[in-house]
Amino acid sequence: MSQYTPPIRDMQFVLHEMLNAESTFKAIPAFEEIDADTMNQIMEEGGKFCAEVLQPLNAVGDTEGCTLNKADHSLKTPTGFKEAYQQFVEAGWASLSCDPTYGGQGLPVTVNQAFYEMMNSANQAWTMYPGLTHGAYDCLHEHGSQEQKDLYLPKLTSGEWTGTMCLTEPHCGTDLGMLRSKAEPQADGSYKITGAKIFISSGEHDMAENIIHLVLARLPDAPVGTKGISLFLVPKFVPNADGSLGARNPIFCGAIEHKMGIHGNATCQMNLDGATGWLIGQPHRGLAAMFVMMNAARLGVGMQSLGLTEIAYQNAVVYAKDRIQSRSLTGPKATDKPADPIIVHPDVRKMLLTTRAYAEGGRALCMWTALELDKELSHPDEAVRKEASEMVALATPIVKAFITDNAWEATSHCMQVYGGHGYIAEWGMEQYVRDSRINMIYEGTNTIQSLDLLGRKVLGDGGAKLMKFGKMVRALCEAEANNPAMKEFIEPLADLGDKVSKLTMEIGGKAMQNPDEVGAAAVDYLRVVGHLFYGYFFAKAAKIALEKQSGGDKFYTAKLHTARFYFQKMLPETAMLIRKARAGSSSLMEMEADLF
Amino acid sequence: MSQYTPPIRDMQFVLHEMLNAESTFKAIPAFEEIDADTMNQIMEEGGKFCAEVLQPLNAVGDTEGCTLNKADHSLKTPTGFKEAYQQFVEAGWASLSCDPTYGGQGLPVTVNQAFYEMMNSANQAWTMYPGLTHGAYDCLHEHGSQEQKDLYLPKLTSGEWTGTMCLTEPHCGTDLGMLRSKAEPQADGSYKITGAKIFISSGEHDMAENIIHLVLARLPDAPVGTKGISLFLVPKFVPNADGSLGARNPIFCGAIEHKMGIHGNATCQMNLDGATGWLIGQPHRGLAAMFVMMNAARLGVGMQSLGLTEIAYQNAVVYAKDRIQSRSLTGPKATDKPADPIIVHPDVRKMLLTTRAYAEGGRALCMWTALELDKELSHPDEAVRKEASEMVALATPIVKAFITDNAWEATSHCMQVYGGHGYIAEWGMEQYVRDSRINMIYEGTNTIQSLDLLGRKVLGDGGAKLMKFGKMVRALCEAEANNPAMKEFIEPLADLGDKVSKLTMEIGGKAMQNPDEVGAAAVDYLRVVGHLFYGYFFAKAAKIALEKQSGGDKFYTAKLHTARFYFQKMLPETAMLIRKARAGSSSLMEMEADLF
Repeated sequence: MSQYTPPIRDMQFVLHEMLNAESTFKAIPAFEEIDADTMNQIMEEGGKFCAEVLQPLNAVGDTEGCTLNKADHSLKTPTGFKEAYQQFVEAGWASLSCDPTYGGQGLPVTVNQAFYEMMNSANQAWTMYPGLTHGAYDCLHEHGSQEQKDLYLPKLTSGEWTGTMCLTEPHCGTDLGMLRSKAEPQADGSYKITGAKIFISSGEHDMAENIIHLVLARLPDAPVGTKGISLFLVPKFVPNADGSLGARNPIFCGAIEHKMGIHGNATCQMNLDGATGWLIGQPHRGLAAMFVMMNAARLGVGMQSLGLTEIAYQNAVVYAKDRIQSRSLTGPKATDKPADPIIVHPDVRKMLLTTRAYAEGGRALCMWTALELDKELSHPDEAVRKEASEMVALATPIVKAFITDNAWEATSHCMQVYGGHGYIAEWGMEQYVRDSRINMIYEGTNTIQSLDLLGRKVLGDGGAKLMKFGKMVRALCEAEANNPAMKEFIEPLADLGDKVSKLTMEIGGKAMQNPDEVGAAAVDYLRVVGHLFYGYFFAKAAKIALEKQSGGDKFYTAKLHTARFYFQKMLPETAMLIRKARAGSSSLMEMEADLF
Repeated sequence: MSQYTPPIRDMQFVLHEMLNAESTFKAIPAFEEIDADTMNQIMEEGGKFCAEVLQPLNAVGDTEGCTLNKADHSLKTPTGFKEAYQQFVEAGWASLSCDPTYGGQGLPVTVNQAFYEMMNSANQAWTMYPGLTHGAYDCLHEHGSQEQKDLYLPKLTSGEWTGTMCLTEPHCGTDLGMLRSKAEPQADGSYKITGAKIFISSGEHDMAENIIHLVLARLPDAPVGTKGISLFLVPKFVPNADGSLGARNPIFCGAIEHKMGIHGNATCQMNLDGATGWLIGQPHRGLAAMFVMMNAARLGVGMQSLGLTEIAYQNAVVYAKDRIQSRSLTGPKATDKPADPIIVHPDVRKMLLTTRAYAEGGRALCMWTALELDKELSHPDEAVRKEASEMVALATPIVKAFITDNAWEATSHCMQVYGGHGYIAEWGMEQYVRDSRINMIYEGTNTIQSLDLLGRKVLGDGGAKLMKFGKMVRALCEAEANNPAMKEFIEPLADLGDKVSKLTMEIGGKAMQNPDEVGAAAVDYLRVVGHLFYGYFFAKAAKIALEKQSGGDKFYTAKLHTARFYFQKMLPETAMLIRKARAGSSSLMEMEADLF
């Protein structure tokens, strides 16, 4: 069975030593009292909840899954899920970063994200219930009318009600322009919504008394395509003005999907049969409103895969130190035993260190992005807000795609460390592999993320956002140019920075002749930029570790080792990626479809 | 639901056009009548059995799994498995490449392997029952006494009885030197064997009347380690001299494993409680005898992943042509529809073409290795046999590790093509991903394969075997040096050949100072050599396609496109691999185990 220790020290390293979150918060009036101690306390307490309450339910959720009672449309979540959710709500965890106006604690997004890393390590399937709720909260907070906010936000803030996003239909997921669900205006200002939605995470369950669905549908006069989609609020039970529950709304779960992983989360087919809903925001502007939720969700998905990477690493390390099998190639190490622990073997270490580096790099990227998001949302200076919003826009597809692709590789490595035992359910590792796989797909497939990055975020503004990030990289390189101890990190980082610039210009030039060049290069390109981010963070980590390791704290020695491993053994992936990206589109596009 | 069309034309291309199997067989007296027509007929008939009988049972096997009745130790396989096996035995498919002395059809291994590709595409979990039987047949055929052969081989040849290999114990898999099962000699020349085995594929089932277990155990006077392991034949029912079934032997399935995939195959914990067995071959020489079975099994595992790659490709192509979603980046293509089929998108094509290239490269490698194996086993000229045995030894770890790693990537790509639907069990794709994962682990993990290749097969003989293969590569490069149409293939192939030589020498040199350098480089090294093989085969395929495409058969156009894609978009992986392999062991080994 899996075990989990919240990586508090590693999170502190990123938040306090690498990013100095406290100083960012000091410049934001709403957060000026959030110091390192406050953050530490929340992480400690939150970590306990994750390790003690959520983690023991993870295997249960996988084994039991959810059960739909078709007779009364009720859905039973796995044993213990409901009780854990009650504890979650009662302890106030749902409201960490919510607006105090509606009962929230007003903490930074960054603090909430740190908590979500631990929740996802402990139990991704469970965490999706509050995770989607928080997304619905964000969307309604930004686009809801005052009346809607007053009625719904307090309940979403406390977690008494949960939320969903109902986008996908059987014939359309990526291409929402084709969606068919219909909303008919009623005399009282509400709408009757009819349609079929699929893949609705947390669409039905028994964990909370009400579920607030955010549903995309078309008004009768809607233009075709994405410009004719509106967003509606469709509660499972229509609340009365005092927040008490009224009539059951005809939005029912018709079936649950049998899927590869995240069995503990109910993935529902939702049928709307004239369900009552209310327009959120402007008619035909639903997709834009939903994008608030989707961008938050994309960061959330990266956080899911970060969580899985961390717990897979922790368990694989325990196994690798415990399992004895064969002798070291350089001669016996555990001479008192019939074989050496498998952590003596170079390739076992390679798999572990790869996972460790993905966890550390992913954590730095997620926390950095969260801090930028806090600045975007709450900083008093408009120029700071604007620049931060650009950084969040640039980083979001990388957080989503790079971290989730890496987690698929990392969890698979950790499974391999277990040998045959990794393939057996009882050890828990294969669940992490299966759970992680969905993260590459939902909230926009990783291909879509790569097109968003290269096509929209980079080429869309002539590389302006990327250059701003590049400036940070250059600043670090210049500051450390004369530090011989940093040479092994700074040289390859600077080199990669130059290569990214050249590659971007080359693809940009080719794309003007042939738009397929963007699609042909985008996935490789995203990984190259992902490595530029990670290289930057690992260089920063190395700098801190070099300064502090003389104090004798081996924590810093380990950080330095991981950074070295990253630069020597992982950054070389960029040599392949750049070649692939530069190889263009012809070998992809010339073959007639019939010949496949 | 999945569909499957046996890729007969592609198999013919490899066997007849690329490898000219007929001419190899003409030089082997036992096979001189095996012409292309004979091979085609067997592939056609075999393909029908796979597509019509086995493939429809694949999802059933995954959903139902196996059920153990602990009361009477019986095990029920999924619905239809037993009946399909009866058809298999009755049609004579079990005996294709078996020795006519014992009732076999005496066909080449190559023909049997072609059939196994299709069986594995159709149903890997089912195919493991006859697959392991064939391994037990091989082992007994080579190492059994005449009496053992007379009693057991006819039944294993016909498939009336099945076989297993019982190696792994809870505390040892890779390191069999630690195994503890004991064999006590009895007065009648038999042994009483006691021990606990785990992960025994097809260890118990209801598909055949008897199961012949090949069991590794220690004699009382055994030296410690791998030099004290003996091999025993332990039948489920002890047969009488006439082949009729006698007493039930106390070798019982105590539990079945719940695992990530291959649910249709019974993975058993086997308890031997004084089970009667007979020594196979010499005392303490069991591991060497078992290696006959293990080498065959390693080729078989590569074939499993080849099969999964092919069927994943076929289904993803159907989906990509059928599913409409978004418009081509270069403007609408299916103007009569609200969106274009997703095969217009470059990255969808990249995922499909990657899978296609892995299937085509894997098929060429498997068939080439099988032909070398036929030469090794049956060629009249000893020098030819010796050279062929060296090629088989070199290729075996590559077949096992390269093809299975590639299949994991490929099946995951095909799943990604399906978007969210790929994650749902009903579509069948996620089963291929789960099933394929075990192939990287069993019969020696892929790390073990890489150590076998680099440490034993390459550095072990000073690179002699590798140089023999390198000579073939060079011969092709020299023959095509003045062919401008082949330049795009020959130049990168020749370049890679040079790089492999240099890399091998560099690692060899470093390994003399520090054996961990082998372990640090081996996994990357194996993939580099795998690409050298694939590059060689794709260059050969391109040459044939260039010569024949003018005839107007678009089959050759497609082969040319795939070869181009391979060289432009996949071979660049070697740039990364060589850098990683050269980066050495220090970043892996310097971190103290406690710091992980």
